[in-house]
Amino acid sequence: MIVMTESRTGTESAPAGSRVLEPTYEGDFVLDRHLLLESGRTLASPTLHYAVYGRLNAARDNAVLVCHALTGSALVGSWWPEVFGPGAVLSLDHDFVICINMLGSCYGSTGPGSVNPETGQVYGPDFPLVSIRDNVRAQAQLLDSLGIRRLRLVLGGSIGGMQALEWAIHDPARVERALIIAVTPLSAMGLALNHLQRQAIQNDPDWAGGHYPPQRPPRQGLGLARQIGMLSYKSAALFDERFARNPNRNGEDPWGLDEQGGGLIGGRFDIAGYLDHQGERFIDRFDANTYLAILRTMDTWDPLNGHASPQEAFGSIRARLSFVGISSDWLFPAEAVRDFAAAIRSAGVQADYRLMTSSHGHDAFLAEQVELVRLLQ
Amino acid sequence: MIVMTESRTGTESAPAGSRVLEPTYEGDFVLDRHLLLESGRTLASPTLHYAVYGRLNAARDNAVLVCHALTGSALVGSWWPEVFGPGAVLSLDHDFVICINMLGSCYGSTGPGSVNPETGQVYGPDFPLVSIRDNVRAQAQLLDSLGIRRLRLVLGGSIGGMQALEWAIHDPARVERALIIAVTPLSAMGLALNHLQRQAIQNDPDWAGGHYPPQRPPRQGLGLARQIGMLSYKSAALFDERFARNPNRNGEDPWGLDEQGGGLIGGRFDIAGYLDHQGERFIDRFDANTYLAILRTMDTWDPLNGHASPQEAFGSIRARLSFVGISSDWLFPAEAVRDFAAAIRSAGVQADYRLMTSSHGHDAFLAEQVELVRLLQ
Repeated sequence: MIVMTESRTGTESAPAGSRVLEPTYEGDFVLDRHLLLESGRTLASPTLHYAVYGRLNAARDNAVLVCHALTGSALVGSWWPEVFGPGAVLSLDHDFVICINMLGSCYGSTGPGSVNPETGQVYGPDFPLVSIRDNVRAQAQLLDSLGIRRLRLVLGGSIGGMQALEWAIHDPARVERALIIAVTPLSAMGLALNHLQRQAIQNDPDWAGGHYPPQRPPRQGLGLARQIGMLSYKSAALFDERFARNPNRNGEDPWGLDEQGGGLIGGRFDIAGYLDHQGERFIDRFDANTYLAILRTMDTWDPLNGHASPQEAFGSIRARLSFVGISSDWLFPAEAVRDFAAAIRSAGVQADYRLMTSSHGHDAFLAEQVELVRLLQ
Repeated sequence: MIVMTESRTGTESAPAGSRVLEPTYEGDFVLDRHLLLESGRTLASPTLHYAVYGRLNAARDNAVLVCHALTGSALVGSWWPEVFGPGAVLSLDHDFVICINMLGSCYGSTGPGSVNPETGQVYGPDFPLVSIRDNVRAQAQLLDSLGIRRLRLVLGGSIGGMQALEWAIHDPARVERALIIAVTPLSAMGLALNHLQRQAIQNDPDWAGGHYPPQRPPRQGLGLARQIGMLSYKSAALFDERFARNPNRNGEDPWGLDEQGGGLIGGRFDIAGYLDHQGERFIDRFDANTYLAILRTMDTWDPLNGHASPQEAFGSIRARLSFVGISSDWLFPAEAVRDFAAAIRSAGVQADYRLMTSSHGHDAFLAEQVELVRLLQ
């Protein structure tokens, strides 16, 4: 059922006024054994929270897995509704769409805010590094339990694209096609941006080494981290178009005295008011330790790591891959996505590349869904 | 006298191993009256700290004014030594070079750490907004006192370029030529980056609303602000070339357990170790309130502000202007510098534009001085 709503709680932002799809089912899957992680640590019987849309057909060959981005949730119908539009990438008439919340998240899967069943204590800062591959291996157990042996398509943007590609590498027999949007292993600049976001949280005394009580999270630090992130998700051109050098729309005066009557701070420009607002909204929907956990999942992903060649890293892939670069993305520049696709192609893998022209920056795969769908048709 | 030295204390960084020029004279000039600021406030008899290199000739027509960037000092011979090289832009055989520390700075001119003579108290967060034009007007009084009626050249990069252009606007009869490097009024992205740096400082409890004691400054906040700044001064290509996805050179393991044995933070990548080092070095040489003061000076500069047209804003300029854009600068993109020069040219001003090709980003005018000099020959 398609419901018109303005609510975007708990998800990456869909365009304002977008339709939101309700899932057919939303629930938890608990792994019946320990998940041995790449780091050597284990997660005791972790929970995966997931949502499904549409119906699995009798042949069980219509399953599609959507992987969400950094601060997303399993509710793909809420944050990517246009991708289900008429004639779009996904169709609820034909597809059975699954979206699984990442481990480490605060939206239902086991994360730093969960209780470690082995100690009876909340994980907090002791939550282990869960790699992209660890996530894929856990997700595979959920698909096994649903009897899904074949995925018509795995897709995602940003860290969701990391998972989509890792699926094609890790489980080549299961994946028919993978669509990998606006992602490569993080560049040094990307690692730098994550390092700054991490410090913004760690510098907040309320972070308390990760042991903050739920009612007193590191609000300022998480808000600043989100603002740093927002810079990297948008583009300079978009900011100029929307905010230029205008004073904040609430009437503050950047050239006048500041609230304290002094002169070091001053009234905000419009871009600053916007970023502050984004930071404040985010604090109410996200958890600081989860942010740290997933940054690390993102930082450490590099399928070439430990391999001598692209052939060795990617040679097992059987799926057809499609990569999308976004023209104004400076977190994962389009040229880097194109080159990454070419490196994978050089390993004998079918991998095409398409350029999405947009001024929205990295976020375009969320902010301009209709354009994304058009590109993929 | 040219002295080989490794020291870069108190300045923007010159390339490692650069020569450092000692000034002919370094001293203070105290304005004998209040400086009325554009904001309507006043600074009581502010001090300008300055350095000169070479000798003023009898005709007093060989003066050159160099304007420093955000965290620079009057000691231009320390941070821009190659610009005085043989056959370079400046020559101590012919030029009398003056560099004046900006108001708001912590390197000798009156700033937030100075005592307000009217109250006997340190300014702290009450230090007023001193605009680029306010700086130029104060500097003009110093030049008057030295009997300098004519400037052969005014030049600077970044916020130094803002001052150079403002000199040509404000005092058209005095300026023969202005060289404006890697600068335009800040874009929305630039304002956003400054907003994040400001918050990094304000979020530090040790900032104490700007009333921190000198022995307990907001170290973490200032260090994070510097790191955010460093990102905008460098380029993604340079970071990839220098740091790639390498683990920190001290042997930390990004894929392993972190120091606390948990999993949320992890060992650093090399780029993170570099940024931390930059932050730590900066804390020892700079003041947080000064950083806030000069960010605001930078934010509020827009010579078009309050004018109906480029003709009205720039029409009075008599100097020949040269603009330099840096190919990898994303804080002040080369295309924006080129367009800014074109807008000024459209007001009937002589203004040429040159592109410096460099992977060093905004910092190239400091990091690649030999290349800059070659471009300007």
